[in-house]
Amino acid sequence: MYLRSIDWVDGKIKIIDQTKLPNDLEYKYLENLDDVVEAIKNMRVRGAPLIGITAVLGLALVAYQNMDRTGEDLLYVLKNAYEKLKKSRPTAVNLVNMMDVLMDYARQNPLPNEVVSFALKLMEQDVDTNRKMAEYGSELIEDGDVVLTHCNTGSLATVSIGTALGVILRAYEKGKEFKVVITETRPKLQGARITAFELLYAGLKPTLIVDSAVSHVMKSLGITKIFVGADRILRDGTTFNKIGTYQIAIAARYHNIPFFVVAPTTTFDLTNDMEDVIIENRGKEEVIKCGDKYIAPKDVNVYNPAFDATPPELISGIVTEKGVYYPPFDFSGLKR
Amino acid sequence: MYLRSIDWVDGKIKIIDQTKLPNDLEYKYLENLDDVVEAIKNMRVRGAPLIGITAVLGLALVAYQNMDRTGEDLLYVLKNAYEKLKKSRPTAVNLVNMMDVLMDYARQNPLPNEVVSFALKLMEQDVDTNRKMAEYGSELIEDGDVVLTHCNTGSLATVSIGTALGVILRAYEKGKEFKVVITETRPKLQGARITAFELLYAGLKPTLIVDSAVSHVMKSLGITKIFVGADRILRDGTTFNKIGTYQIAIAARYHNIPFFVVAPTTTFDLTNDMEDVIIENRGKEEVIKCGDKYIAPKDVNVYNPAFDATPPELISGIVTEKGVYYPPFDFSGLKR
Repeated sequence: MYLRSIDWVDGKIKIIDQTKLPNDLEYKYLENLDDVVEAIKNMRVRGAPLIGITAVLGLALVAYQNMDRTGEDLLYVLKNAYEKLKKSRPTAVNLVNMMDVLMDYARQNPLPNEVVSFALKLMEQDVDTNRKMAEYGSELIEDGDVVLTHCNTGSLATVSIGTALGVILRAYEKGKEFKVVITETRPKLQGARITAFELLYAGLKPTLIVDSAVSHVMKSLGITKIFVGADRILRDGTTFNKIGTYQIAIAARYHNIPFFVVAPTTTFDLTNDMEDVIIENRGKEEVIKCGDKYIAPKDVNVYNPAFDATPPELISGIVTEKGVYYPPFDFSGLKR
Repeated sequence: MYLRSIDWVDGKIKIIDQTKLPNDLEYKYLENLDDVVEAIKNMRVRGAPLIGITAVLGLALVAYQNMDRTGEDLLYVLKNAYEKLKKSRPTAVNLVNMMDVLMDYARQNPLPNEVVSFALKLMEQDVDTNRKMAEYGSELIEDGDVVLTHCNTGSLATVSIGTALGVILRAYEKGKEFKVVITETRPKLQGARITAFELLYAGLKPTLIVDSAVSHVMKSLGITKIFVGADRILRDGTTFNKIGTYQIAIAARYHNIPFFVVAPTTTFDLTNDMEDVIIENRGKEEVIKCGDKYIAPKDVNVYNPAFDATPPELISGIVTEKGVYYPPFDFSGLKR
């Protein structure tokens, strides 16, 4: 029931080509570095954790195809590949962070087989972390619940299972009886396109709504719990996530509905403050075009922030692979 | 600077076909009752006041095409047309209210020419009402304001000038210096398509955002005032308006931003209660298709309410052609 977004098969990287969703579930094999760069650049893979793992497997592919090289010789080709991959999505920090972990390991163990094994270990760690989060989070869902989620935080944003959507999928797998409402998540429609697909694939029957219907639906469909993912969580619990999350949290508070964040501890940023975090503003074309069709005047000014910040006072709990944190949030135990 | 959405030209109804916006400013002539019903149903004309006037002109068109009928004979064909028009959009109270006004007049004056003249008088009254509302409302806007509005409530939602957008246009016409932020308003994108078009047409430079960015924008762009329209206002002030209005009002309260409703007194429904009002649920195709392209799995369940209800405790004031009402709302003076 859980999709597998990425895997290593006979020295090739097998991905779900997400540009084909929701119309087709199509797998694609990445056979060389150029294929990997192209897949990241053109968003055949997306979602911060998945982009990171794809880049790591890209480096593993280079090592695998240079079995005769070791030591500095291997590090040289890896470093070249690293630079190419780094440019594929310049704003995705995970991509660099994950590759850095692999490169550190490669410097200590500059052998192709070692590099490949470590990359595969990082991939399986992602699944393991998600499995633990899903287990903790699914305990929060009860029979009769009507759960709302935003954006895509499922198998297709990670290697498998997912974060907030992983919680929902696991609760369903356990046989709990509840309903799921999903937001379409403008402007990129990850909810409508990807979350809808993923839930239908798993056998759930989600109800899709437009983002502006959230508050009305809290009353009319009787939402009882909310689960969202996170792109970054600060030490006071402030959660950066997909644009729209903040207003769902405000509406949840107004209606007294518990609002949960689900994210691995790698998402925590215990050093920076609110003002240090830059919210990415994306291009206007995402908003004013649908495919090739203009849905707004071409010359209108557009403000397209990709994320927003939800303050801790609106968050009921944060589910991680180490358990559920409740307010007042204290993450000091997570310090490395 | 104000567009004219509808007019009576040589025994035909001339409308701006709003489904063609923002790419084309295209006029269309409605030549019979079926054309009128089709135009309302398929939202070639939209916006509660404009729907009301379109229906009234639809009745005038029937009268005009039955010049040989008078008395009961005329009332019979008008009553049939009334029933057809009534079914075209269920939530907007204006449609029925406006037709009732015309039918009352027709019962007293069952002559085709009288009915047509009275319909034209109602059309001009709409412009006059809007001019008065715009005048009262524009006094609420000050230099330096950052005003947010939702959906389309301008000339293109009325005969001309508009309600909430009329207030903004009039303040601009008076030379006030302020910024305007507009929501795209999914699923039909009236904000992105129509409000953006209308403001650019008038010379303003609005900033377009997706609906889910409203709360973030209240902080990051420093919204100071909100103006929205209404499809129906109950005697306690409960305001039915485009889906998303309720959540803007909740977010406005959370950020302490004044939230104003702008609507003519014909929008008031002083007899029905909350539970008597049916919120129109529209088809799933509006949400899962963009043009001919599917943006969600075809078989996903969709809940597509077109309106929501904002309770009076979230409303700072209601601007009408008779002045601005402040809480606690008392509309008893409006009873007919």
